[in-house]
Amino acid sequence: MTASTIAELEARAKAVIPGGMYGHQSVKMVAPGTPQFFTRADGAYLWDAEGRQYLDLMCGYGPQLFGYRNREIDAAYCEQLSKIDTATGPAPVMVELAEALTAQISHGDWAMFCKNGTDATTMALMVARAHRGAKKLLVATGAYHGSAPWCTPMPAGTLAEDRAHMIQYTYNDIASLEAAAEAAGEDLAGIFASPFKHDVLVDQELPDPAYARRARELCDAAGALLIVDDIRAGFRLARDCSWTGLGIAPDLSCWGKALANGHPISALVGSEIARNAATQIYATGSFWFSAAPMAASLATLKLIRETNYLEHTERLGEILRTGLAEISTEAGLNISQTGPVQMPLIMFNDETGARDMGIGMQISAGMVSRGIYFHPWHNMFLSAAMTEEDIADVLDAARGVIKAL
Amino acid sequence: MTASTIAELEARAKAVIPGGMYGHQSVKMVAPGTPQFFTRADGAYLWDAEGRQYLDLMCGYGPQLFGYRNREIDAAYCEQLSKIDTATGPAPVMVELAEALTAQISHGDWAMFCKNGTDATTMALMVARAHRGAKKLLVATGAYHGSAPWCTPMPAGTLAEDRAHMIQYTYNDIASLEAAAEAAGEDLAGIFASPFKHDVLVDQELPDPAYARRARELCDAAGALLIVDDIRAGFRLARDCSWTGLGIAPDLSCWGKALANGHPISALVGSEIARNAATQIYATGSFWFSAAPMAASLATLKLIRETNYLEHTERLGEILRTGLAEISTEAGLNISQTGPVQMPLIMFNDETGARDMGIGMQISAGMVSRGIYFHPWHNMFLSAAMTEEDIADVLDAARGVIKAL
Repeated sequence: MTASTIAELEARAKAVIPGGMYGHQSVKMVAPGTPQFFTRADGAYLWDAEGRQYLDLMCGYGPQLFGYRNREIDAAYCEQLSKIDTATGPAPVMVELAEALTAQISHGDWAMFCKNGTDATTMALMVARAHRGAKKLLVATGAYHGSAPWCTPMPAGTLAEDRAHMIQYTYNDIASLEAAAEAAGEDLAGIFASPFKHDVLVDQELPDPAYARRARELCDAAGALLIVDDIRAGFRLARDCSWTGLGIAPDLSCWGKALANGHPISALVGSEIARNAATQIYATGSFWFSAAPMAASLATLKLIRETNYLEHTERLGEILRTGLAEISTEAGLNISQTGPVQMPLIMFNDETGARDMGIGMQISAGMVSRGIYFHPWHNMFLSAAMTEEDIADVLDAARGVIKAL
Repeated sequence: MTASTIAELEARAKAVIPGGMYGHQSVKMVAPGTPQFFTRADGAYLWDAEGRQYLDLMCGYGPQLFGYRNREIDAAYCEQLSKIDTATGPAPVMVELAEALTAQISHGDWAMFCKNGTDATTMALMVARAHRGAKKLLVATGAYHGSAPWCTPMPAGTLAEDRAHMIQYTYNDIASLEAAAEAAGEDLAGIFASPFKHDVLVDQELPDPAYARRARELCDAAGALLIVDDIRAGFRLARDCSWTGLGIAPDLSCWGKALANGHPISALVGSEIARNAATQIYATGSFWFSAAPMAASLATLKLIRETNYLEHTERLGEILRTGLAEISTEAGLNISQTGPVQMPLIMFNDETGARDMGIGMQISAGMVSRGIYFHPWHNMFLSAAMTEEDIADVLDAARGVIKAL
């Protein structure tokens, strides 16, 4: 293809893709000037289709944990591709990866691999229901568990029946969780929990340990399964399931995104108690047993075990949070920084303290125009490829943008 | 990993994967001796984890159309991977691929990319329901449209509500199709049709053109959408949608499997009439916008346009069918060969003409032991990488197996 401007690409896309773009990477709802198409990625950076460079605070919406085009991980992918990838059966690397993943994740006794995060959460739903024939699943209001009819955040094309047995509760609210469990009664199949509240558009919340413990107790009391959806946060908060540090072992955990640093693979990991139900469900996909993403995931797990990526991203996150707080205070700007520092959601409020999406959009647009890919209402991600200099660049850009307000 | 026997791998797998293996590539239900794990693939061949070579008549259950590790297609993948793959937005190749695919598929005015075949069929379901708010979908009894709760062939973990508005009809049976449409009445959202009847375990059937026409008419009369699920057969029967040759244009067609010769991508392709509904649904995935599989798909489409792969696989299929018929007649064996020659389902009957799975399993086991990966109850696939010599090898093996019966 000859080089095109982004506007030309958008016009062409509009002709052959519904709405010009769909899904979570559409830029229609983010700040003006955010580029839709990219032609190059390397380490912490992206280049848009007009050649502008960005420090990417979205990390591909999560997959990129060790830098774009990480040489070790991509080499593992390509080496496996040169032997066998998608075939009529799996390669031994599938067994190796299941062994490595269950060794890495404390509660995990078995693993099933798939492609989308939604595949893993949907299998969790099916396993929970198959476990003892109960139907009700509790989900926190506003939590994102994928885009299948039972969980997509937009109702178009879905039916009331698709969520007939889903009961909502309020994240971190023990009374509402107990009420939902009581409503399910004997029919409680499982409780879905995000590792922390990382809904879009509202402040993030770390999990109250008492809420996590209560979720575990309610599942134990009912013989239901506790499901931690670690798709987005997996290996970003811990080298284990995100709730292990709270002392809570789920029965099922869902993994994807960073599991192979951007190569397509997701997984459902389970405890012994859920193995029989997992054996009963039928879920599969044309590319679920492909070997190359599994080899890439093994290489990613090695970096997870052997590098200080976690401490590094936490340290950068602290520097970013502290720096942005200082800049905002100086400017008299009411900033809201929530969630784990390495997965920050950064939003802005007006003088009364009320959320002001207008300022957020302006700041986000300013950051993008200064070469920082910034998201106005979705948590961002720091990666092992970022440096203190990168964070200093973010702070410089923020200083400039806020000054110009 | 040190080299392991398949039995050792199976024992290790059993510890960390439910049932030792799950999904369509589990060998639990096929012939004894069929290997579970493979370590190498090239062209038409696979090598199992103990080094035995097989001519692979399953082609990865469909993805392999131009040979394993096709050099042109894999080079396109790797070249794109070296620039940008999974990122915070798509690359221009997404627009190029949507343009190429809608140019290739007569009815197609737009395309949406995803990962699993099930993603494409589920999006088709959602688009059909979003189109005018109707709920009922007609599906042929026994047809496979994926493994989500609304379509998985096994009920474990699913609820009656998951298919509350699915109405079954009998493939190729106009009266049953009309009855199903009448039962749906005003609430008819769409009709799912496989391009031919390719259910497992029963003889395949080519579509009766009158049935295909009636499906189109019933959709038109109700304002419903006609969906051709071309995941498995796409580009194996035609260089266009499989029903184009019948003079029938669906509103939606589902693609996957061979779309990038084994690289992970699937697609929903639609006509203008369905564009607005497609714009309304929300479906997305972590890896749906990855550029490398799109580049591989563009390279695959080039081979589809520029080579005689289709005529070649049809010719090989004719030679195989004729040869097997002769061998069976000579041996007095009642063989059933159904479906398009390049996607043959080969089963066996007893002297009374009744299906005899026992003989089928024996023959399949014999073929496998002679280095032909043969499936006893699922359609097989021929690929452009196969030669007349390969088919002669299949016939030689069949002669030996049948003689030994």
